[in-house]
Amino acid sequence: MQVGGVSWRTIRVGADGWSVEVIDQRLLPHRFQVARLVSLQDAADAIRSMTVRGAPLIGATAAYGVALALRVDASDESLVEAAEILGATRPTAINLAWALDAAVAVLGTLPPDERLSAAYRHAAGLCDDDVATNSAIGEHGLALIRAAWRRRHAAGATRVNILTHCNAGWLATVDWGTALAPVYKAHAEGIPVHVWVDETRPRNQGAALTAWELGQAGIPHTVVVDSASGHLMQRGLVDLCFVGTDRTTSDGDVANKIGTYPTALAARDNGVPFYVCVPGPSIDWSLANGQDIPIEVRADSEVLGVEGVLADGSTARVRIAPTGTMALNPAFDVTPARLVTGLVTERGIAVADRRDLARLYPEMATERAGD
Amino acid sequence: MQVGGVSWRTIRVGADGWSVEVIDQRLLPHRFQVARLVSLQDAADAIRSMTVRGAPLIGATAAYGVALALRVDASDESLVEAAEILGATRPTAINLAWALDAAVAVLGTLPPDERLSAAYRHAAGLCDDDVATNSAIGEHGLALIRAAWRRRHAAGATRVNILTHCNAGWLATVDWGTALAPVYKAHAEGIPVHVWVDETRPRNQGAALTAWELGQAGIPHTVVVDSASGHLMQRGLVDLCFVGTDRTTSDGDVANKIGTYPTALAARDNGVPFYVCVPGPSIDWSLANGQDIPIEVRADSEVLGVEGVLADGSTARVRIAPTGTMALNPAFDVTPARLVTGLVTERGIAVADRRDLARLYPEMATERAGD
Repeated sequence: MQVGGVSWRTIRVGADGWSVEVIDQRLLPHRFQVARLVSLQDAADAIRSMTVRGAPLIGATAAYGVALALRVDASDESLVEAAEILGATRPTAINLAWALDAAVAVLGTLPPDERLSAAYRHAAGLCDDDVATNSAIGEHGLALIRAAWRRRHAAGATRVNILTHCNAGWLATVDWGTALAPVYKAHAEGIPVHVWVDETRPRNQGAALTAWELGQAGIPHTVVVDSASGHLMQRGLVDLCFVGTDRTTSDGDVANKIGTYPTALAARDNGVPFYVCVPGPSIDWSLANGQDIPIEVRADSEVLGVEGVLADGSTARVRIAPTGTMALNPAFDVTPARLVTGLVTERGIAVADRRDLARLYPEMATERAGD
Repeated sequence: MQVGGVSWRTIRVGADGWSVEVIDQRLLPHRFQVARLVSLQDAADAIRSMTVRGAPLIGATAAYGVALALRVDASDESLVEAAEILGATRPTAINLAWALDAAVAVLGTLPPDERLSAAYRHAAGLCDDDVATNSAIGEHGLALIRAAWRRRHAAGATRVNILTHCNAGWLATVDWGTALAPVYKAHAEGIPVHVWVDETRPRNQGAALTAWELGQAGIPHTVVVDSASGHLMQRGLVDLCFVGTDRTTSDGDVANKIGTYPTALAARDNGVPFYVCVPGPSIDWSLANGQDIPIEVRADSEVLGVEGVLADGSTARVRIAPTGTMALNPAFDVTPARLVTGLVTERGIAVADRRDLARLYPEMATERAGD
């Protein structure tokens, strides 16, 4: 996507041909700055610290992290250790395990002296695949927005209202985004979209990242607190919901940012279609029940305080609760398949159940049956 | 309730016998400070600025605001004007209109020279009634907690988990609180209660006020982001929900802080009882459908930024969204009666419908029928 008129991806190889450059997402929307990763440890830290975040981008960063590890030591032990270190950074996004399994499978069969260049090729291929996948998700989602806009327009509306939670835009992926890809395509097609942006406490990825992305693209949007989406839906102000996912099970249960589940409940209660944009690598074919997905619990300081900028533009963290207050910070929740209108994948839209997912991914469903 | 071992109410007449002292709730939890109101304008500003907040306390402050106006001018015009100015401060809490109507009805029939002392007596009576009302709500709610604890204890649990949204504690009333009154009574009785405190964006009354109240009382509690309550319920970590209300209709629809509706949806989806603590004056007998309740829309700056304290203890506001971002800030939402397990009033617990509310308040139901 464009930042100040320049095309960007969230991750790329630097001008030196080997270091890895990522957009430091902890600094957005207040500062646009590139962070340079030069080691396995840098890549692991970038994922853990949320310099990069979003399931697809976490996978891409992990793939490059393997390459950075192999620059130092291309042995079997080094490869396995790199995958272990990177795999332990964050537990919920399945793309991480998927990217690492793929890297180990591809690289492990090669002689050590061929691994390094293969690792960079593999990571670059994964990134290109992610872009193509998200673009395809965008096309399938676009058809939904187009239909909604036709209906709304016929009823006299001047815009179509889409609600999203957290950031599943291009910043969460290599490019395009998952949940926002349909929005970008609709906007490009001239459909008057307006996006309700849940702020997404505690880290405010909505208010910080989604609002920034949409602003850069010139797409009208309005930030609301997470708990307001139900009220908006009661008032008929939401036509469609699009969210991303960190892991979707073979039966269509969806792990995504905390707050996705109550938003889906509100959508169901008000008859608003609730779509989850799911790249193939976010489907965990080894799990059926979403309640079996490990849910990351993050530091309580994220709940007890908020980061932002002061009036003078400097960054600061303010504490909102009394000193010594306890907090619990589950980073994700699980939306049961019954609340999901459809899973928008790169291969088309599936009903959120095993049978329909297997229709789109027969090779994966078969593999699972053979486990 | 106690603050540092000293008994407090949220509002009282000062040592001079006429000025009105309130706890400045904008400064909590970081600073405990009393604000002195000496004029009608002070009282109106205190309500508008949320120096005082919570439907019952807004009503009490309005009653004293009338007294402060009559000190300057006890004429009919002054009385009507005071009620108009105070009535225009905030639209959703019905207690405000109720307190003003009552004051005008009582004082308007008196000769002007008797109005001032009568206004203070009326306000003091309203405050005492509020305390008695909330204490009675606490007793009825206590029975629910006691029963839940018996069940949980028999199942091997070590505590009973209550979830609340916003602040409907003693700070929202004159004393005791509505939703927290049962919690205080349960704690006093030795029931091991633990409270999940929704932070309650955008003004964080949960993280700031409810956590402070419960901390002062020594009641175990944990702050969570608003959107986490569904996840807690899915995991079986919530036994009961108690919330307050700014206005409940004759048919049992409940206006309360934004986010109450999705919390009620999550409670219903997980079979968790959802109780609303309703003092009689919060019932609007003139409205049946909750969607007819006016919903206050507050400044977008409350959503785009957060107030708190910096590491050095000074107060600051940080901006979380890009400069120029739009936000919408509806302060309340409406939970339909069908999602409410029961209305806990000072006269007992009612099913959230017209028939059962009329059983508890036959005189009000009759009055309405005669409209």
